[in-house]
Amino acid sequence: MKRSVLAFLAVCCFAASAARAADKPRARDLGVPFDGTPGPGNAITDVRGVTVGHSTIIRGSGKLEVGKGPVRTGVTAVVPRGKATDNDPVFAGWFALNGAGEMTGTTWVEESGFLEGPVMITNTHSVGTVHDATIAWRIKQGEADATGYWWSNPVVAETWDGELNDINGFHVKEANVFEALSTASGGRVAEGSVGGGTGMVCNGFKGGIGTSSRKLSEEAGGYTVGALVQCNYGRKMDLRIAGVPVGREIAGSGTRDDDAGSIIIVVATDAPLLPTQLKRLARRASLGLARDGSIAGNGSGDIFIAFSTANPGAARPTGTVTLTDLPNDRMNPLFSATVQSVEEAIVNAMVAAETMKGADDLVVRALPHDELRRVLKKYNRLVE
Amino acid sequence: MKRSVLAFLAVCCFAASAARAADKPRARDLGVPFDGTPGPGNAITDVRGVTVGHSTIIRGSGKLEVGKGPVRTGVTAVVPRGKATDNDPVFAGWFALNGAGEMTGTTWVEESGFLEGPVMITNTHSVGTVHDATIAWRIKQGEADATGYWWSNPVVAETWDGELNDINGFHVKEANVFEALSTASGGRVAEGSVGGGTGMVCNGFKGGIGTSSRKLSEEAGGYTVGALVQCNYGRKMDLRIAGVPVGREIAGSGTRDDDAGSIIIVVATDAPLLPTQLKRLARRASLGLARDGSIAGNGSGDIFIAFSTANPGAARPTGTVTLTDLPNDRMNPLFSATVQSVEEAIVNAMVAAETMKGADDLVVRALPHDELRRVLKKYNRLVE
Amino acid sequence: MKRSVLAFLAVCCFAASAARAADKPRARDLGVPFDGTPGPGNAITDVRGVTVGHSTIIRGSGKLEVGKGPVRTGVTAVVPRGKATDNDPVFAGWFALNGAGEMTGTTWVEESGFLEGPVMITNTHSVGTVHDATIAWRIKQGEADATGYWWSNPVVAETWDGELNDINGFHVKEANVFEALSTASGGRVAEGSVGGGTGMVCNGFKGGIGTSSRKLSEEAGGYTVGALVQCNYGRKMDLRIAGVPVGREIAGSGTRDDDAGSIIIVVATDAPLLPTQLKRLARRASLGLARDGSIAGNGSGDIFIAFSTANPGAARPTGTVTLTDLPNDRMNPLFSATVQSVEEAIVNAMVAAETMKGADDLVVRALPHDELRRVLKKYNRLVE
Amino acid sequence: MKRSVLAFLAVCCFAASAARAADKPRARDLGVPFDGTPGPGNAITDVRGVTVGHSTIIRGSGKLEVGKGPVRTGVTAVVPRGKATDNDPVFAGWFALNGAGEMTGTTWVEESGFLEGPVMITNTHSVGTVHDATIAWRIKQGEADATGYWWSNPVVAETWDGELNDINGFHVKEANVFEALSTASGGRVAEGSVGGGTGMVCNGFKGGIGTSSRKLSEEAGGYTVGALVQCNYGRKMDLRIAGVPVGREIAGSGTRDDDAGSIIIVVATDAPLLPTQLKRLARRASLGLARDGSIAGNGSGDIFIAFSTANPGAARPTGTVTLTDLPNDRMNPLFSATVQSVEEAIVNAMVAAETMKGADDLVVRALPHDELRRVLKKYNRLVE
Repeated sequence: MKRSVLAFLAVCCFAASAARAADKPRARDLGVPFDGTPGPGNAITDVRGVTVGHSTIIRGSGKLEVGKGPVRTGVTAVVPRGKATDNDPVFAGWFALNGAGEMTGTTWVEESGFLEGPVMITNTHSVGTVHDATIAWRIKQGEADATGYWWSNPVVAETWDGELNDINGFHVKEANVFEALSTASGGRVAEGSVGGGTGMVCNGFKGGIGTSSRKLSEEAGGYTVGALVQCNYGRKMDLRIAGVPVGREIAGSGTRDDDAGSIIIVVATDAPLLPTQLKRLARRASLGLARDGSIAGNGSGDIFIAFSTANPGAARPTGTVTLTDLPNDRMNPLFSATVQSVEEAIVNAMVAAETMKGADDLVVRALPHDELRRVLKKYNRLVE
Repeated sequence: MKRSVLAFLAVCCFAASAARAADKPRARDLGVPFDGTPGPGNAITDVRGVTVGHSTIIRGSGKLEVGKGPVRTGVTAVVPRGKATDNDPVFAGWFALNGAGEMTGTTWVEESGFLEGPVMITNTHSVGTVHDATIAWRIKQGEADATGYWWSNPVVAETWDGELNDINGFHVKEANVFEALSTASGGRVAEGSVGGGTGMVCNGFKGGIGTSSRKLSEEAGGYTVGALVQCNYGRKMDLRIAGVPVGREIAGSGTRDDDAGSIIIVVATDAPLLPTQLKRLARRASLGLARDGSIAGNGSGDIFIAFSTANPGAARPTGTVTLTDLPNDRMNPLFSATVQSVEEAIVNAMVAAETMKGADDLVVRALPHDELRRVLKKYNRLVE
Repeated sequence: MKRSVLAFLAVCCFAASAARAADKPRARDLGVPFDGTPGPGNAITDVRGVTVGHSTIIRGSGKLEVGKGPVRTGVTAVVPRGKATDNDPVFAGWFALNGAGEMTGTTWVEESGFLEGPVMITNTHSVGTVHDATIAWRIKQGEADATGYWWSNPVVAETWDGELNDINGFHVKEANVFEALSTASGGRVAEGSVGGGTGMVCNGFKGGIGTSSRKLSEEAGGYTVGALVQCNYGRKMDLRIAGVPVGREIAGSGTRDDDAGSIIIVVATDAPLLPTQLKRLARRASLGLARDGSIAGNGSGDIFIAFSTANPGAARPTGTVTLTDLPNDRMNPLFSATVQSVEEAIVNAMVAAETMKGADDLVVRALPHDELRRVLKKYNRLVE
Repeated sequence: MKRSVLAFLAVCCFAASAARAADKPRARDLGVPFDGTPGPGNAITDVRGVTVGHSTIIRGSGKLEVGKGPVRTGVTAVVPRGKATDNDPVFAGWFALNGAGEMTGTTWVEESGFLEGPVMITNTHSVGTVHDATIAWRIKQGEADATGYWWSNPVVAETWDGELNDINGFHVKEANVFEALSTASGGRVAEGSVGGGTGMVCNGFKGGIGTSSRKLSEEAGGYTVGALVQCNYGRKMDLRIAGVPVGREIAGSGTRDDDAGSIIIVVATDAPLLPTQLKRLARRASLGLARDGSIAGNGSGDIFIAFSTANPGAARPTGTVTLTDLPNDRMNPLFSATVQSVEEAIVNAMVAAETMKGADDLVVRALPHDELRRVLKKYNRLVE
């Protein structure tokens, strides 16, 4: 793909997403109650330095023909330190609540304590393309490290969009990966049916990308925690929002109601945490997910990664490094923030996603905002 | 301790517990809504063969003097196959949501896939005594295995009762362990401030032992899942019951409101599951706990073990064995049952526990039943 | 790629490999002493049903130009049940002695206890291509499963051949993956600079693919254990063969002598083992590796997977399954067999690999057979 | 126990041990070749601050009568920062190569990244007593932390001495634990049949406690790594020393020759490592063990812990802390040092241990020094 085409793609798609995002209410705009205080954008990008980019691929309609479409898929990139990421890994930890999915690169995250490069999220059968293209992108950025033994095991995660998307057609291409990476920015994050989340289904309604954040009090250190999810998990009957059994009170979507989905959760913070402590954050993502009703079904790839943007330069190869660390005893506010951000990010994804018609004209209905408000009100939980 | 004294202790304490248990309403008697269908006793003992025994030690009052009391502690034994347990290990798996606690023996559970012997639960500083006494009990039961190399690494778990109990006085003795083991029985399980749960505090109210179960439909295999918890975790502000923010709506207990507690969860099933699958069940206990509001605080030892009573004889040392296994694809009903049983067992513990005065005359208030009902009603969640 | 071309490739390359393999002495032919009794082929394919295929890509010479070559790389496929693999997963377990590498799909192996499909091994920067192509291959084989939710997270492992190979040129293509899979067969396994091992360096000499097996006595069950390695790890100074410090006694290769390599080890057995038990085998691969002198260097991706071909049909989605299991107490002969097979497979790889000239005319010298014999003799370890 | 008696015990036993230790040759004194450069004492106490204490219990002879003896057992304490340990935890990581054993407290090590207190090693059935007594010892040392929620989950590991010792008699008492802790000192470490290692058997000969260390070059940072083992594992037929198959060349001991033992390995360093990095060290202990021939048999509890004395004050509960860290890329010399120290510590244990007669007059023969030298010479490996 030529650079000019890539640039065009990047501009037009990003502009469209941003416009879409700006118009739409988010969960708390609808009156859903959440605990804690969000950051200014209520997004993972509230963690300074973190950028997010999407490439959304929507093409064709009607009967599914493998290799032709319809296509409802994409790629999302979460880049820990923005452009500085390539040469400055972040401390990270990961956790699989239910490992029916893929997040490549985690063996090295576990061993080294570092996430080197972005977290990429796509559909199940495009992991390979995104893997290669993420390496290719890194190579394009310039020189490898001084050892001459440069190698890359990128982190690529996935959920399965094979209901709405021609997943076996392998429609994600290198250009899409480059688009997600090159357009990654701070500020507002497009939610719903965008990027890797384009074709996702969640709790019986349309799912996709969602994000949220929490800002800790100054006594707690003033740190920020942000979560970004690509949600494709769950059964309508299990859906709880703000503790209310919403799934049982709203008529269904006509689509699957089993657990054949997954959820990828990325947690970012600027709190100075060590790898072992970031694994603790990753594990807490489970609890936010549980608040929305998940049972972590057999086929659900519920895989989480947490990183800290603190301690730049921690991976440098010579001499010793000086690190800052927040002791375990002060982590509770970060745990609460993680649980709350994840809980809200999922609902944000569902609130943002719009009804989509995909392969074989399957229609997956969006979570109806008015019905959500009606049910919350019935249970005296609507914030008015 | 002479046998006759032991017998006396066993009879009187068990009778008292049973009487207490029989009189008291449980969570669903108060109108708390829960999902799923419980077994006949709504207890872990609904899993055929599982027995539970308690030894409760309540002695002294007033100012704490280390070694003298007041004593508010005990031991609980969960015995997978009842008396057949000694020579017939069960398949098991374990998981630490937050490892700020102890469950001995898990290294062998992880390696072998078997739980050999009971799960013992006590206070933090009595783990050693219970460990020794559990080995001593096993030795009393008769011959070791044929290898001549008999050894035992018992599973002993703990939560911290140092607010109400003279925990540094080491008041649990071998006789208490023998009492819990020798009185273990099927049927009704005493809940609340009994056994290992005697001095526990949970979500700002009195905690302790709770249990619950689920019976699957015949299409799902007709299996039973039961949970037993020793709950000592959480902050009042986080407490949710049936999705309702109960903790914020009910005035506090006057005791600590941080996370310096823990929860031990034992999950039993008769579904024929392999060790890897039982670890999956153990991990789901996190989700039931999260429904009740936990953030898995830094100091909370949230450690879970799951076992299956199916496949008797699986550990026999010669020849190959024939096993029955339920495929992963059929586990979702077991996952739901685990989440639901754990969610309910915790509330059962809090509902059963009565207000207790302990060391230094500290009073930990029971969760007030009428206020709980009032709050559930306010949020339209009371089952009337 | 057209089928006819593929067929041609398959035939010519396989023929060449087989010829090469047949001519060459293996480690024990040179008089290296090993413990235990190998199977008839002293190869992983001694485990009935297991097939192995390679695609070897050797092209160009001289100065490295990214995207042009020289190319010294390939793909190796280890297929647990041969053609029956697609619809009949095997029980498996994995272990990372040092996770500085990638083996995709392990999160699902860990969760489910199953390996679904082949183990693919290639170079670090071709993991993505091989990942996609392995899914594409599976799609070509026919219908997905009955759920309609078919998805695949293939197991693709790697080591780094960036010294001899234009690794950033992404020269492995879908056709190579199809070649490795379509030509996979039982019987003799080509060793040395073939398949994924083509461009590898090991302990300062030329590395690559090696294999070995052990047949247990009838009293021990008569089972077979086989190992296949793609070896690229280690420093010459650490190399021990049969306990002899060979690396210090033989002049070096002129190439790197650090740990910037890795080793992937695949262990297969027909012993009826559960996933937890197969993880135990995988962990023992460490001990065989250690016998050859490894310190599991920081940059070495030492990642192992073990599977059992017993219990066909264990993953079927409905009803319960009946399994056969060998108790833990009978596993010691399998442990010895694993350690011994791995120890020998590595030496076989080094003995089979021939001196190679690659990128920038770098020459990596083969382990000289006569010098190896000389050193073994010096330490009274040569079998004559 | 009165303080005066304790003092007496401490003095007399320690003096005896020290005398014994001073007289005896160690492995390298016999001409066994090892790689790397040891620290001044070739002991774990070369890591500044680390202290070691033993309590050895040898009593009675003849026929075994449970509760009466003969007694051949004890306790060993490894104290990371000596007396400063109580209030200044060290970063730590652990690993179970084969989890057929117990090391309590590891769940908290894993979660927190800290080892709080000593590592205690005893016999399998005395874990409970040592657990309780280690808490009691800590209580005696003074005030708990400022939170008022002081609790302790001590690290207590074990191996099985039930051949030579009346293990079911529970002969280790609180006084022995206090002796090991109160006499812990730097400098020379008694080896062989002392402390927790008193009744151990290793590779068919008498085992017990052994230690070794390595000092890194200044270019590598000048750090020290030390290992201490309580070795009770292995079969004579598998024993390799310096790569030589010693076990097959020396006539046996008349005792068991299976794997019903275990090995506990403690690795200490002053290199500034994070918990994830210390887990990496712990995992390398496997490789040192493998060099001595282990297959990590089914019943062998091969459990390892590594800690760093760097970064004092890292666990303090308020504010953030500043840490020093050695990057992963500089860890290879530490990995080599760990492998080498463990390899040598085991041989030191076997060389130091003397022939012992225990329960039922069973005699376990010491590894004969002259025969060891003869065999090393045969294989041209004797350092003369």
